[in-house]
Amino acid sequence: MVRVAIAGASGYTGFELLRILSRHPQVTVTTVTSRAHTGQAVADVYPALRGHCPLIFQNTTAEVLTAEADLVFTALPHQAAMGIVPDLLSRGVKVVDLSADFRFRDPRVYEAWYQEHTAPDLLSETVYGLPELYRDAIARARLVGNPGCYPTSILLAAAPLVKRRLVDPRTIIADSKSGVSGAGRGLSLATHFCEVHDGFKAYKVAEHRHTPEIEQELSALAGEQLHISFTPHLVPMTRGILSTVYAQLRPGVTGEEVDAAYRDLYGTERFLRLCPPGRFPSTLQVRGTNYCDLAWKVDPRTDRIVVVSVIDNLTRGASGQAVCNMNLMMGLDEACGLEAAPWMP
Amino acid sequence: MVRVAIAGASGYTGFELLRILSRHPQVTVTTVTSRAHTGQAVADVYPALRGHCPLIFQNTTAEVLTAEADLVFTALPHQAAMGIVPDLLSRGVKVVDLSADFRFRDPRVYEAWYQEHTAPDLLSETVYGLPELYRDAIARARLVGNPGCYPTSILLAAAPLVKRRLVDPRTIIADSKSGVSGAGRGLSLATHFCEVHDGFKAYKVAEHRHTPEIEQELSALAGEQLHISFTPHLVPMTRGILSTVYAQLRPGVTGEEVDAAYRDLYGTERFLRLCPPGRFPSTLQVRGTNYCDLAWKVDPRTDRIVVVSVIDNLTRGASGQAVCNMNLMMGLDEACGLEAAPWMP
Amino acid sequence: MVRVAIAGASGYTGFELLRILSRHPQVTVTTVTSRAHTGQAVADVYPALRGHCPLIFQNTTAEVLTAEADLVFTALPHQAAMGIVPDLLSRGVKVVDLSADFRFRDPRVYEAWYQEHTAPDLLSETVYGLPELYRDAIARARLVGNPGCYPTSILLAAAPLVKRRLVDPRTIIADSKSGVSGAGRGLSLATHFCEVHDGFKAYKVAEHRHTPEIEQELSALAGEQLHISFTPHLVPMTRGILSTVYAQLRPGVTGEEVDAAYRDLYGTERFLRLCPPGRFPSTLQVRGTNYCDLAWKVDPRTDRIVVVSVIDNLTRGASGQAVCNMNLMMGLDEACGLEAAPWMP
Amino acid sequence: MVRVAIAGASGYTGFELLRILSRHPQVTVTTVTSRAHTGQAVADVYPALRGHCPLIFQNTTAEVLTAEADLVFTALPHQAAMGIVPDLLSRGVKVVDLSADFRFRDPRVYEAWYQEHTAPDLLSETVYGLPELYRDAIARARLVGNPGCYPTSILLAAAPLVKRRLVDPRTIIADSKSGVSGAGRGLSLATHFCEVHDGFKAYKVAEHRHTPEIEQELSALAGEQLHISFTPHLVPMTRGILSTVYAQLRPGVTGEEVDAAYRDLYGTERFLRLCPPGRFPSTLQVRGTNYCDLAWKVDPRTDRIVVVSVIDNLTRGASGQAVCNMNLMMGLDEACGLEAAPWMP
Repeated sequence: MVRVAIAGASGYTGFELLRILSRHPQVTVTTVTSRAHTGQAVADVYPALRGHCPLIFQNTTAEVLTAEADLVFTALPHQAAMGIVPDLLSRGVKVVDLSADFRFRDPRVYEAWYQEHTAPDLLSETVYGLPELYRDAIARARLVGNPGCYPTSILLAAAPLVKRRLVDPRTIIADSKSGVSGAGRGLSLATHFCEVHDGFKAYKVAEHRHTPEIEQELSALAGEQLHISFTPHLVPMTRGILSTVYAQLRPGVTGEEVDAAYRDLYGTERFLRLCPPGRFPSTLQVRGTNYCDLAWKVDPRTDRIVVVSVIDNLTRGASGQAVCNMNLMMGLDEACGLEAAPWMP
Repeated sequence: MVRVAIAGASGYTGFELLRILSRHPQVTVTTVTSRAHTGQAVADVYPALRGHCPLIFQNTTAEVLTAEADLVFTALPHQAAMGIVPDLLSRGVKVVDLSADFRFRDPRVYEAWYQEHTAPDLLSETVYGLPELYRDAIARARLVGNPGCYPTSILLAAAPLVKRRLVDPRTIIADSKSGVSGAGRGLSLATHFCEVHDGFKAYKVAEHRHTPEIEQELSALAGEQLHISFTPHLVPMTRGILSTVYAQLRPGVTGEEVDAAYRDLYGTERFLRLCPPGRFPSTLQVRGTNYCDLAWKVDPRTDRIVVVSVIDNLTRGASGQAVCNMNLMMGLDEACGLEAAPWMP
Repeated sequence: MVRVAIAGASGYTGFELLRILSRHPQVTVTTVTSRAHTGQAVADVYPALRGHCPLIFQNTTAEVLTAEADLVFTALPHQAAMGIVPDLLSRGVKVVDLSADFRFRDPRVYEAWYQEHTAPDLLSETVYGLPELYRDAIARARLVGNPGCYPTSILLAAAPLVKRRLVDPRTIIADSKSGVSGAGRGLSLATHFCEVHDGFKAYKVAEHRHTPEIEQELSALAGEQLHISFTPHLVPMTRGILSTVYAQLRPGVTGEEVDAAYRDLYGTERFLRLCPPGRFPSTLQVRGTNYCDLAWKVDPRTDRIVVVSVIDNLTRGASGQAVCNMNLMMGLDEACGLEAAPWMP
Repeated sequence: MVRVAIAGASGYTGFELLRILSRHPQVTVTTVTSRAHTGQAVADVYPALRGHCPLIFQNTTAEVLTAEADLVFTALPHQAAMGIVPDLLSRGVKVVDLSADFRFRDPRVYEAWYQEHTAPDLLSETVYGLPELYRDAIARARLVGNPGCYPTSILLAAAPLVKRRLVDPRTIIADSKSGVSGAGRGLSLATHFCEVHDGFKAYKVAEHRHTPEIEQELSALAGEQLHISFTPHLVPMTRGILSTVYAQLRPGVTGEEVDAAYRDLYGTERFLRLCPPGRFPSTLQVRGTNYCDLAWKVDPRTDRIVVVSVIDNLTRGASGQAVCNMNLMMGLDEACGLEAAPWMP
């Protein structure tokens, strides 16, 4: 059995890790920490887990986290994560970090969008935890930077187009819509029920911090530095991200080539499902799962392609993908513990 | 492996059976039927199940259903169920019926609230499928009438009070609130998004057909015929029932006696969770699970007790309980396939 | 034109006052105050009001509030209200207080459920602002205590039954369901979108502070001290309260007598609508209005009556009723400014 | 008083007309028709309107509609509208048509996306009812084709950019998100609560019939034929459309020029509100009103502009705009009856 600890386990991504791992046949969660809830039982903070988790939240320190763990999930706010990860690694555990702190290859990019990076030396060995793109490197990694929720949905949608040079990479526009759980469990007027329910809005237009993360990966695929337009929106629902990605096709590119690109790259992927022609996915069909469901359409009137992807922001966009990365890092089957079918409705 | 078939598998309870059974380690679903979707793939009707279910909907006949099955779930409308169940039983399979057709001991009660009963001879051997009350009989049964969603939530809340004679059974009032999935997948103005969303209403006040089902079971527990007030309401949410049950305490009954009653009856139950004192449950904490979470409070100002129960109407209120009954009927552990922790949020 | 000021205008009830009064043909809002938003424009805090309100939030003091006002609405938290109301009155304005501070005739009741009352001398002259019960006294009052949202919905449902002695007043049970806006605009986990959405729960079971307010008024109608069971629940919607009220009919009472009671008391009321027989109301049909829609049913199986009432908690349950009270106090038509039809859907 | 009739008054846009006109000081609704509800009282179909509308639905014929009307609103399905409008006009009334039948100048475009046009001769005199673009022509028109909901939101967002030639018109992408009421009151699985609630999806990707309507108007503004990408999405809310519009700025265009364009065109508009710099609108702030709230941002990293517009699809996107057009056609103030402030929350 693999022994894991979770740092910052009282937030939504921490809870989602606990939920998934509570049924993982080859993993035992030995330690959970939470500054705010130190000393409280998990089942008291999350009655949903009564009967599924006997653990007590402990204080978040490297010593506590590594005492009985082979791997630590850090589900801490950015900045806090890089404050503790070097210590965790030095104690011999592997780490999957769910914050933004270890997603960037170039510390200057991180510092331009976030703040000073306090562990830049680790960035060269860190692997960006998107299994479809970096499966082999993840399996060998000591530290994985788990992708952001929006980047996961956008990169999976756009990667075949960019990699196969089917579109002009300077024309990519990603219009994304997220459920409210993406904002976390902290209190703010922006997540007050009455300010969100029955309404819809855009936020952080052309300035969201996931932009450089998306650009880093698309640039790597394109072989050139590119910039995209990215607009996040808030949907009055709890879970799910739908990204609508637009790009101009290169002259002469046909629908058959597009189709071949998606099938070649994703045809054997366990957690990518291509919708039948003419059908577009709803976020409902991936809730609580690690799936990304994809559909696309070429519009001959504008020579543009429109790709739609859906994920669960807490599962594929955070904790499910983190468990998948853990599986790869620990030599387990990557789908282990992630096989449950989604609810409907 | 137990082989099961599902009749009427394209509705929400049919899909919920498929979802649960897709991960059941000791069951194979061999056949699914649907009149409306004959010939279509399950994964085309429910994209959520893509990759989890290779079956094609077949036509609903006894012959098709029993060809490769040890047990059949009938998730058909009432009347249609009793039209096919005798034939199924005569072909040697066991049956869990999710309709109302086999919930009543006395066909006259059924006929007063529904219509003529066409298989009244089966009622004497049929077992009411509430495991907490009838576990042993279920295990020996050939035909189980799976309880209604509201009755499940109300009976579990009130059973200890009535059985232990702690309340005046003529004073029981059950005020229940259900998510919209309880109305099924059929089309009606009552389930149109815009007519439900952001609103709340009562319906079938003092005339809902679940009333006699609740009264049958409470009367059996009380040892006398009783009548209750039951008011269902519609909550703008997809899943969940919360029932608030009121009753007048018999003179001199103490909170300790009430506490003892709940602990004695439910203390070792796998799918009943008593909330810690002072905490009341939300439907969110049982979504997608077979749990019933319960809390109660004695009000000394009125000498009344208030009990609150929450279930998922599609899981504990229908398909999860049906799987639990199947487990008992086939000699499996009753929790098998039902152990997953719920989502939150 | 009547000149009014609003103390604590940045909360939801304050905003609702502003919305209603922005179209009131005989009222000018001269002053709005808010401690948290002093110096900010109303239209910046509430973009919905851009173009409808040129005011700037001022600091909340009696001097500011009375400088240009004939009447002041105090939409402050309880305790803060009674801290300023005596000063307001002494400066010669009339006051409609939306907090709980001036709803009780007996300060000992207030003090048993809230805290020490700092202006008990005012209670004897204060009028409970439910126009259907106290219209004439309101018209003569200097200070009106605006009813709570739950009490409004329950008292309007039960008053005819109690006043006409059609039910045993000791058997009254009020099961109420409220939208989230009733919890106000303040931040708490209880109003976090993800903790509320798609779920349902009871709270403050048999201990909500609106209980003594309801009992005070029902006792006055009954001519005897009575106690009720009251359970509030939280509905995942923004606005609306539905109360389901149960009571045992006195022996021999007929449906015709019940019908006559409701028609006699409410037949000419401007803001009470009795549903046609057999139809029960949804909260959707009263949103944004001062209506209370009512329906009832006698259940001969239990000799109980079930009454269902719906209101908008922010309008009839707070600010709409407050404007109605103001109209009466200032000699205007009571419906003035409150005539708009509700949205649907 | 202007006398108006409404054909097809039992759908959501018909009801919204009734709601608005019930408070219009210079209009009397004399006749409402509905094939499905002939003979029923409006207040029975829409209990929200009890006390606000004494009318009975009559059968939909030109004779009934014109008997006591100066102007008729046709809120019928497309095809049905053009079947009756010529007859209405020949009887001397003016018409505002809310269907798609009279929005196109060129019948071939209509026929390519809808079906054969049976009244093509009327198209040359018909005016497209977007007051910000065609106010004077509307005031002189006998027949106005009321714009579609999506086109209204997109045209108001993009018009200043296209008219002032600030963007490359071939790069316009409109990503729109609508509440469910846009799908109407008819029954379909797509509007079943459980299939929509808590989920999000795209539909009719690159093939929605509002596309040519948007292109017709943008082409007229641009002075050249252009094509756009338009993707509609379904938001789990009742009312509201938010459109996010992207376009490539022409070389050298500055934010100041953009700002000037919006202020010049919209600075004095009664129903257009420009958000303060840095703030983006929510659909909540325009619910139930005729407002379009707008915000935009230039992204120097991509030389793209992003414009966000919000409207209420039933008010500005249909019935509110229709009333505004009626006001203009009948010589009334265009804001008459449309001045109410929106709810919040």
